[in-house]
Amino acid sequence: MYDDNNIFAKIIRGEIPSFKVFEDAGAIAFMDAMPQSEGHTLVVPKAQARNFFDIEPAVLAELIKTTQHVARGVQKAFNPGGMRIIQFNESVAGQTVFHIHFHIVPCYEGVPLRTHNRDWADKAVLAQHAERVKQALGN
Amino acid sequence: MYDDNNIFAKIIRGEIPSFKVFEDAGAIAFMDAMPQSEGHTLVVPKAQARNFFDIEPAVLAELIKTTQHVARGVQKAFNPGGMRIIQFNESVAGQTVFHIHFHIVPCYEGVPLRTHNRDWADKAVLAQHAERVKQALGN
Repeated sequence: MYDDNNIFAKIIRGEIPSFKVFEDAGAIAFMDAMPQSEGHTLVVPKAQARNFFDIEPAVLAELIKTTQHVARGVQKAFNPGGMRIIQFNESVAGQTVFHIHFHIVPCYEGVPLRTHNRDWADKAVLAQHAERVKQALGN
Repeated sequence: MYDDNNIFAKIIRGEIPSFKVFEDAGAIAFMDAMPQSEGHTLVVPKAQARNFFDIEPAVLAELIKTTQHVARGVQKAFNPGGMRIIQFNESVAGQTVFHIHFHIVPCYEGVPLRTHNRDWADKAVLAQHAERVKQALGN
């Protein structure tokens, strides 16, 4: 069910780069490379799990606490009027990488969200955004 | 920040009815009255919190474990091809009831999700759906 050739497993292993904003023993967080809005960030557990159903409850509990921590940084860095926390399971629901992750999606008044997983963001912009979140988190 | 006149606080207090599928000391789960898809279920902590930012981390951790448990029941009851777990913060992000809650939204191949919070479902159908989830959860 879980295939460790997915892109997030490679990011966790350090085989490919990411615009990282947070990392601890249990999870890693980085900017979504195809963001739906400015500041769109992903939180990914290091434990191997495909989705919401096969992740260990204790790992899931830690993951949502990390997501809250990172979301506070995103909120402080971008000051959006609202925020969505989203988790997709299987292709029909919009999952594109089969290693469980939470999306932190800032919502700005009058700015529609872009389509999920469509357009690549400018890497220099992502790097700047990651820096803003890291500073907000005090990293 | 938190106003206990919201509709979920009233459901928790038993002042208004809901199509309940699960309840324990920490949370309650019931069918969304304006579902985006068949089986759309909400999980609500009994603790007072407006959103993802003011909920205590330990309460949030329990809430996501309860959400996982209830989602397993929804999956078993409706067998959707996918599922979204969604949490909205503030109006601009789609929050309409200001007591934190997770949405469990089944996704079915070829069936677009309905708009959030628009159309009331038939109560007899919601009652049937709640019964299916309760049975799947072994309640």
